[in-house]
Amino acid sequence: MLYFEDFAAGQQFSHGGYTIGEADAVAFAREYDPQFFHTDPVAAKDSFFGILVVSGWQTAAISMRLKAQAMKDVAGGLIGLGLEAVKWPLAVVPGDTLRVLITVTGKRESASKPRYGIVSYRMETFNQNDQMVMTALTSVLTLRRPV
Amino acid sequence: MLYFEDFAAGQQFSHGGYTIGEADAVAFAREYDPQFFHTDPVAAKDSFFGILVVSGWQTAAISMRLKAQAMKDVAGGLIGLGLEAVKWPLAVVPGDTLRVLITVTGKRESASKPRYGIVSYRMETFNQNDQMVMTALTSVLTLRRPV
Repeated sequence: MLYFEDFAAGQQFSHGGYTIGEADAVAFAREYDPQFFHTDPVAAKDSFFGILVVSGWQTAAISMRLKAQAMKDVAGGLIGLGLEAVKWPLAVVPGDTLRVLITVTGKRESASKPRYGIVSYRMETFNQNDQMVMTALTSVLTLRRPV
Repeated sequence: MLYFEDFAAGQQFSHGGYTIGEADAVAFAREYDPQFFHTDPVAAKDSFFGILVVSGWQTAAISMRLKAQAMKDVAGGLIGLGLEAVKWPLAVVPGDTLRVLITVTGKRESASKPRYGIVSYRMETFNQNDQMVMTALTSVLTLRRPV
């Protein structure tokens, strides 16, 4: 298992292979992002995007799944404290296959929680053509190695 | 319908009444955030949270749904450009009922897209006890009123 002490700036973790089907994209959007360019392939032609696109919140959720798989050996799990600089530079469309690349940017001790440290990452999500579809900075509470 | 010209700093939009069941929380987490404190009520007792908690990404997705409902009259939909300062100050647990409060913080013209302007909001999500469970800043492409 990986503890706070095992992380260092520059380390990378990655996982991929998640393909989004149109039915799943529409089902997610109907529940969580009910806008016509996410739910209706015909009406979407007259939208900003010109085509049905995957909700950015589903792209974010898939990125979390891939991150959890890439970092499954982190003791105690990934307890997200927040996000900064979230961007979706390119729309995801049904049929795309996503992968995530995590790069550790730094770490520090927690002032309030002596059993934990805080590790910071850059998360980047790419499609099957290596085009970036999402990027974010995040900080995660991470268990310290028991003495 | 609401166009870019109709927005001004200080305007507020709200919508609520979304209750999260445990089965839905676990199903979302199994697909998108497969960590034991989101998927296993028994194992979650030994986690940081001490109880099964809803994935912050589901809280985010529900907040988007409530925002889309609160702002359903915006012409052309809400085309999110990014997020800043995302925080989850309190865990959401199954059974919680969420509401979202959107406060317009500013707007500006788009340099590259003459048909659109950019409206910025603060999104705040609260539980049934009026405790804040998520906050974020976001900017959204918004159609200008056709001349």
